[in-house]
Amino acid sequence: MSESAPEPVTHPAPVATIASLAAHQGRRVTLRGWLYNIRSSGKLLFPTFRDGTGTIQGIVPKAAVPPEVFDRIKSLTQESSVIVTGRVRADSRAPSGFELDVEDVEIVHLVPTGAPFPITLKEHGVDFLMEHRHLWFRTPRQSAILRVRATIMRAAQEYFDTHGFVRTDPPILTPAACEGTSTLFELDYFGDPAFLTQSGQLYIEATALALGKVYSFGPTFRAEKSKTRRHLTEFWMIEPEVAFMDLEGDMDLAEAFLIHIVSTVLANHRADLKVIGRDIAKLEAVIAPGRFPRATYDEAHAMLERAFAEGKLEAPHIYGDDLGSPDETYISSQFDKPVMIHRYPAASKAFYMQPDPADPTKALCVDVLAPEGYGEIIGGSQRVDSYDLLRARILEHNLPLAAFEWYLDLRRYGSVPHSGFGMGIERAVAWICGLDHVRETIPFARTLNRIYP
Amino acid sequence: MSESAPEPVTHPAPVATIASLAAHQGRRVTLRGWLYNIRSSGKLLFPTFRDGTGTIQGIVPKAAVPPEVFDRIKSLTQESSVIVTGRVRADSRAPSGFELDVEDVEIVHLVPTGAPFPITLKEHGVDFLMEHRHLWFRTPRQSAILRVRATIMRAAQEYFDTHGFVRTDPPILTPAACEGTSTLFELDYFGDPAFLTQSGQLYIEATALALGKVYSFGPTFRAEKSKTRRHLTEFWMIEPEVAFMDLEGDMDLAEAFLIHIVSTVLANHRADLKVIGRDIAKLEAVIAPGRFPRATYDEAHAMLERAFAEGKLEAPHIYGDDLGSPDETYISSQFDKPVMIHRYPAASKAFYMQPDPADPTKALCVDVLAPEGYGEIIGGSQRVDSYDLLRARILEHNLPLAAFEWYLDLRRYGSVPHSGFGMGIERAVAWICGLDHVRETIPFARTLNRIYP
Repeated sequence: MSESAPEPVTHPAPVATIASLAAHQGRRVTLRGWLYNIRSSGKLLFPTFRDGTGTIQGIVPKAAVPPEVFDRIKSLTQESSVIVTGRVRADSRAPSGFELDVEDVEIVHLVPTGAPFPITLKEHGVDFLMEHRHLWFRTPRQSAILRVRATIMRAAQEYFDTHGFVRTDPPILTPAACEGTSTLFELDYFGDPAFLTQSGQLYIEATALALGKVYSFGPTFRAEKSKTRRHLTEFWMIEPEVAFMDLEGDMDLAEAFLIHIVSTVLANHRADLKVIGRDIAKLEAVIAPGRFPRATYDEAHAMLERAFAEGKLEAPHIYGDDLGSPDETYISSQFDKPVMIHRYPAASKAFYMQPDPADPTKALCVDVLAPEGYGEIIGGSQRVDSYDLLRARILEHNLPLAAFEWYLDLRRYGSVPHSGFGMGIERAVAWICGLDHVRETIPFARTLNRIYP
Repeated sequence: MSESAPEPVTHPAPVATIASLAAHQGRRVTLRGWLYNIRSSGKLLFPTFRDGTGTIQGIVPKAAVPPEVFDRIKSLTQESSVIVTGRVRADSRAPSGFELDVEDVEIVHLVPTGAPFPITLKEHGVDFLMEHRHLWFRTPRQSAILRVRATIMRAAQEYFDTHGFVRTDPPILTPAACEGTSTLFELDYFGDPAFLTQSGQLYIEATALALGKVYSFGPTFRAEKSKTRRHLTEFWMIEPEVAFMDLEGDMDLAEAFLIHIVSTVLANHRADLKVIGRDIAKLEAVIAPGRFPRATYDEAHAMLERAFAEGKLEAPHIYGDDLGSPDETYISSQFDKPVMIHRYPAASKAFYMQPDPADPTKALCVDVLAPEGYGEIIGGSQRVDSYDLLRARILEHNLPLAAFEWYLDLRRYGSVPHSGFGMGIERAVAWICGLDHVRETIPFARTLNRIYP
């Protein structure tokens, strides 16, 4: 079946992965994985195998293998684990570019026909799939999403690691709330109350003043009772913080960071994005030459007023309010690239944001809205660096001063202008993969109604 | 002061970091940072600046700068934030190899002499330092440890990222305990009990069967009431899990992984290790040619029996018991490299460990002991792949079967031999940096008595 001279089958075939088959073209390999699907057509079997790196179709003509091998392959059930030996053959019709002329299959574990793999190739409801999440992510689309997620996380860290940032891990268990306690998970810490972190920002402000440029990367938590397609109770955040950086530098950083992430995904996951069904042109537009558009809150408000006047928005945007989901969708739909909205009214923003010296009613902050209506993926700001102002802000927001004494110390001892942002990984994955719901962006989603498996 | 022709001082000097001064030798630069210390000797000032990437000594002859600049520099207090302009001069006596001929200093924030930086260059007690952890890590030794920690974390991920592993994040909020509930932090999850994870292993066994080779990297928690130099309540774990890998493969992986980490630290942090006071020869021995020694539990027991007979151990090791801290210290002191002790008695080990087919009273597990008495840094095993055996083990250990149904599914559908391990980051940092206590290995340590700052 191959044009090269056949090697004696007694030679052991080297173990390969499906993703690396191009390097083994025309040669015998051993694959270790699972049966994804099998079709038969009279004297031909077409088993499709998966091994976590991809899928490949095998071909087994009855005449080409001993009868017991043919029968063994024919007996395979979905998700049975196998060790497959065969010869790699280029085939331009195959999605991966290769097919496997199967010579032998060793069954590691046969899934019994009486208790088959619960996720068949038919449609299943979302509740059923989430209840079987530990099996669901074996399917091609879910596997592809998890591979892209891993690359997004790697690329995000890589950007900081290669630009002089030091990773510093803030605590998960914290004694006080960063932005109020209503959406915090509380627990008993040897007799004292403790809360799961919502953001590492305050802590990495401290490490930024020690190390200059830092980032944190870990899980964060919100005990949010809302059931939306954009909220998880447990999600991953990556947050840089930079001493001596202002809001303009923060926006430049966010832009370069997002371009690196999208470029890295495009360079490594075109096949996965195809499996997911992503329109790759939308991602290519993000990294095309040209800066990300930037607009002040006031400019965004004016855009929304015009849109409402022209009947393109159902409700008017009220000046001073945050941007609603339809507002964000409208604004992001006007551009091919992420849009940066900066300088929101200070009154609605967090206590730690520096006022704009040109107009102290505005905060030096930025939200980055992903294209295609995916909404905010990054929120950042320049932080208050004056001790007196920060102390007044903490009191205004009725936060417990004692819990923030250490944070005030950062303004007592060598305060500097500093800025940072946070990006939620799951929202970034939803956008880059083009997903409707964040529950598919993480191996084991935690939502209001789900903490299993 | 420099041999090259002086540039006109009106030219803006480029912003540089102290770590990058070699690239600016003989030229003017702007540094942004903090005053670490200042000495004066009559008409000479010697301010030492830090910027998070390192420290550099400046020299200010009174005659070389305008009087107001001299007075301004003289007024600087410890940790005042500054923007410094000066010319970089190579000086072989300087720890960094360079000194700075200071031309000007702009004060960003002057720490008042009446309320000075609390951590002086004198000795402080540990409680005081931990209470001021947000400031303590500005000091050279603590900064250096955090930089090395960041590189250990990066190198650990890099090893897996470049060897075909997919990062998959297990949940932090879990409905059940991996190894019993006595040391779990519990919280209320919208009316149901939930626990903070102690290990992602069970979850990444599921992703390994989907993606082949995976790893997790996140915080883990133990509500341990013990106060020791080796325990934190919140610590970071990196855990690989590989389908179709046996214990021998697991040990090979752990060895290659540790060599990559130590090599990367040595390649990037010799100056930091010097600041920390680490004996670098001990680390060089780890990566020198030659395999890590491996011994079975039985062989280790025999070593300990001999050592006790020769008076080298105070207490005998009881066969069947785990290795105690003096046992681990004795064994690791016999070798320059980490030692792998494998095949412990199954009775004392976790329910999910595969029995050794050659002797089912032994588990196919391994502990990697760091040299110099640092004890266990890695624990790993081959996992039970038989449904019947795993189910029996769960019942034997009085674990709630319902909570493990999803985990049993991994043996119902295409079970395969698989193995993995976990490395605690803080113990690895303690070993590689040569620290007495894990509290210095993480930015904000959480211990029995500490959750602030």
